[in-house]
Amino acid sequence: MAEPGAAPTVAIVVIGDEILSGKFAEENAAWLIPTLRELGAALRRIVVIPDVVSDIGDTVKACAERFDHVITSGGVGPTHDDLTMEGIAGAFGVPVVRHPELERLLRGCYGDRLEERNLRMADVPEGATLVGADHPSWPVTRFHNVWILPGVPVVFRRKFDSIREHFRARPFHVRRAYCLGEEGALAGHLDAVVAGHPEVSVGSYPRFDAREYRVIVTLESKDPAAAERALADLCARLPAGVVVRTE
Amino acid sequence: MAEPGAAPTVAIVVIGDEILSGKFAEENAAWLIPTLRELGAALRRIVVIPDVVSDIGDTVKACAERFDHVITSGGVGPTHDDLTMEGIAGAFGVPVVRHPELERLLRGCYGDRLEERNLRMADVPEGATLVGADHPSWPVTRFHNVWILPGVPVVFRRKFDSIREHFRARPFHVRRAYCLGEEGALAGHLDAVVAGHPEVSVGSYPRFDAREYRVIVTLESKDPAAAERALADLCARLPAGVVVRTE
Repeated sequence: MAEPGAAPTVAIVVIGDEILSGKFAEENAAWLIPTLRELGAALRRIVVIPDVVSDIGDTVKACAERFDHVITSGGVGPTHDDLTMEGIAGAFGVPVVRHPELERLLRGCYGDRLEERNLRMADVPEGATLVGADHPSWPVTRFHNVWILPGVPVVFRRKFDSIREHFRARPFHVRRAYCLGEEGALAGHLDAVVAGHPEVSVGSYPRFDAREYRVIVTLESKDPAAAERALADLCARLPAGVVVRTE
Repeated sequence: MAEPGAAPTVAIVVIGDEILSGKFAEENAAWLIPTLRELGAALRRIVVIPDVVSDIGDTVKACAERFDHVITSGGVGPTHDDLTMEGIAGAFGVPVVRHPELERLLRGCYGDRLEERNLRMADVPEGATLVGADHPSWPVTRFHNVWILPGVPVVFRRKFDSIREHFRARPFHVRRAYCLGEEGALAGHLDAVVAGHPEVSVGSYPRFDAREYRVIVTLESKDPAAAERALADLCARLPAGVVVRTE
């Protein structure tokens, strides 16, 4: 895959037995895919893992070392299955510590109803900072390049909206050619387009449900002129009538 | 997380730039989650990765070493972005070879329309076998414990249906308690249930959108009596009125 221009790379780590067991549908990665895309960020990996400390630590650390940003979903809260902070802290070799500002916010929020266990939500890996604390929503906990978000979708979205500008980059531009014919007949022409346009990412997707075309070819770049040139090149290479429309 | 009884563990590896970039919604893992659950298999990981040979190889190999089964989706076909076979073969240190039975099927299917590139769909990691060849659908390529499926959802589902009995195990049993009150107030009681019922997996899920309850507690086991005992224990521990209903 050609890297479609400079963009911050992102991994999403979804933490929760409830997703893998089908008790709740995955909503947060599904929402982030188009959201990150629109921001111009390059999503490179999604991993869904169970509520296991070592899985959380190993997965988040590996992604943090490889990608510009990691966004975690889930495993933050007061119960036994909320292990995200412990997992991340352990993998990075730091203790979990109580964050005084989060403790203050929690005490203010719960008042007399505060249970000691609610204060677990003030526990973070040592060195974590709060981002967006002046936003009307709760601040987001950031540990190095890891953004630690809760799993409940409505809260996840509100929190991500408060940090979304950290992910903004030049937008992607995609052109599409809808083609007749088998992928096998297109493959050689696509190879030539891939070789001639290294700044363009080329995808080929057969469809068996459509009527007027059989394959969608996508040509994508951060440079709109480059995507346009690749589309023109593809159309010129293919026999007349193969491309039924472009967009 | 308590392991809820003996079940084959499964990882799903979804291969495709088109998912990460939001060009197509992810449908295959989303369909497999409830399907595997109903079969009694234990899904332990979902990874979505781009069309990059090293990512494919590293991810599939790591999952194959750790879990009983790996199911891959996507990256099989005749074009430049179809790299699953090459990725898996490279990671396992074997060449990609043309499978004579797949070549025969492809030649029969395409007839005069066959392009040389279509035969790439007969190329598999050396040592791969075909499963379900007597089924009316195309056979599934299996390499050790890796089941290699195509990404187009209608074909993915048809192929998985032909191999689904390989994943069948004792069913899971889930009981649920719908509770009033904050998770923080429940947390200590849940700890006691977790400690007292090691054969039961206990989950706690706050809901902010429901009216008559605040938290769903799930109690899950391959042994229905064990899930039932854990539910009874939880209800006995919680103050009267906290559990508004069970199922």
